[in-house]
Amino acid sequence: MESRSGGIRVVKQTRAAYFVSDSTGITAETLGNALLANFPGFAFVKHTIPFVDTPEGAANVVRDIARDADAGLSPIVFATTKNASVSAMLASAPATLIDLLGGHLTELETALGTTASEQLGQFHQLGDATQYFARMRAVEYAIEHDDGQSSRALDLADVIIIAPSRCGKTPTTMYLALQYGLLVANYPLTDDDFPTEGLPRLVAPYASRCFGITTTPLRLSQVRHERRPDSRYASLAQCTVELRRAEDLYRRNRVPFLNSSTKSVEEMSAVILQTLRLRP
Amino acid sequence: MESRSGGIRVVKQTRAAYFVSDSTGITAETLGNALLANFPGFAFVKHTIPFVDTPEGAANVVRDIARDADAGLSPIVFATTKNASVSAMLASAPATLIDLLGGHLTELETALGTTASEQLGQFHQLGDATQYFARMRAVEYAIEHDDGQSSRALDLADVIIIAPSRCGKTPTTMYLALQYGLLVANYPLTDDDFPTEGLPRLVAPYASRCFGITTTPLRLSQVRHERRPDSRYASLAQCTVELRRAEDLYRRNRVPFLNSSTKSVEEMSAVILQTLRLRP
Repeated sequence: MESRSGGIRVVKQTRAAYFVSDSTGITAETLGNALLANFPGFAFVKHTIPFVDTPEGAANVVRDIARDADAGLSPIVFATTKNASVSAMLASAPATLIDLLGGHLTELETALGTTASEQLGQFHQLGDATQYFARMRAVEYAIEHDDGQSSRALDLADVIIIAPSRCGKTPTTMYLALQYGLLVANYPLTDDDFPTEGLPRLVAPYASRCFGITTTPLRLSQVRHERRPDSRYASLAQCTVELRRAEDLYRRNRVPFLNSSTKSVEEMSAVILQTLRLRP
Repeated sequence: MESRSGGIRVVKQTRAAYFVSDSTGITAETLGNALLANFPGFAFVKHTIPFVDTPEGAANVVRDIARDADAGLSPIVFATTKNASVSAMLASAPATLIDLLGGHLTELETALGTTASEQLGQFHQLGDATQYFARMRAVEYAIEHDDGQSSRALDLADVIIIAPSRCGKTPTTMYLALQYGLLVANYPLTDDDFPTEGLPRLVAPYASRCFGITTTPLRLSQVRHERRPDSRYASLAQCTVELRRAEDLYRRNRVPFLNSSTKSVEEMSAVILQTLRLRP
């Protein structure tokens, strides 16, 4: 693969990367990508293959890997498969196999002084339905309370995210609801909210559960231009004023806040959990 | 810890489990929990500690771990920390350290014939803003198109999830939007949709992007009872009829579908991606 960097053509070595799982593949993908990010000198052609839970399924994957190996892509396979015959089949592929579970399971067996297999029979997934309902309720609560649309049951909110329009309240709200089943409302700070010193009337009773978001004026202006090009609303001057006022408001009311311009939704969520001590 | 199983009191050995990360802790938590799930004979007191990126931060964690060790909880530490001095500090704790990254990084260095540290200087997080905007847009699209509320830009949808009321369309919709940045609409199947053989008028033009959800009548009835207790809407008879009709509709129109009663939101999403070939 070729890319351009400062006018110089850089030819990167290309490798195939497979994320293989007996479940959704999300863990294999996340951890695999985190590991690969340490090697920016390579280009990776990535494949996520979920639900590989039979030797036949694994044989199909091995066939794909072998094709890539023949094509000179020296595949690397990140696996989170628990079944021994599936793992053995994957190990037969012409590739580097990085087993993200197996070795650690052995470490854990040593630490606990028992084998995983002996224990497995006792395993039953209790509480899944409960967790499912909690997430459903949380997502519905987040939709109902997005952008200050409803004040119903606002007293139940675990978190109320406040920020000027387009600072990124909604994705973080949804992530907290989905990942942690928390009840999260969000409320936009508009010009109307700034004549007074205090928090907006609706959220003021819940100040201890508020969390503010800010961003850089340039970034906010860019996002707003997408919605309303060349408007006063999107102008750099207006964005600068609104962000300064919002930050003043957070400080005056001791509302913890965070700049979203350099943080992912996951990072924002983790900081909010940490700050408001909401970890289950 | 004690629990009751069939009237017999079971005393489980209790251990402390720490998920320690220099970032959000989500990967350490997910993988650590997946590993611990293999040992249901133990009770684990769990702690997630994100953003541990300095030796001082790690020293604080080691202090907590030592306290648990003194209390006889023989701690197990799952770590995804990249910094060597942070990892060294954690290794000094009186606990079993399971390093979820380090060993694999070494394996990867061998496979690629280079060291991660040599490469790291070149690393820059390009495309993060793009991904952020894509997620924001996707979540907003999902909110706008939840429960058939809008037909605007429905032609842009990557997926349209259809199902009777309360089958679990919304959480899966949001997960697909947040995790993969896909544009996902969902549409409720009501009694009005069943006089004809075809899909509802609004979604019919996009049949190839539709995905159906079904569940068990009992589960649907339980969920509906929470919303409208003792209503006809929540009755087992009504739920049975609606689900049978919905499944008939899916089959007649070759809409792939899935039973949500035994699947997590992550699993549903992974199957939908796979079936509609939507993996990026």
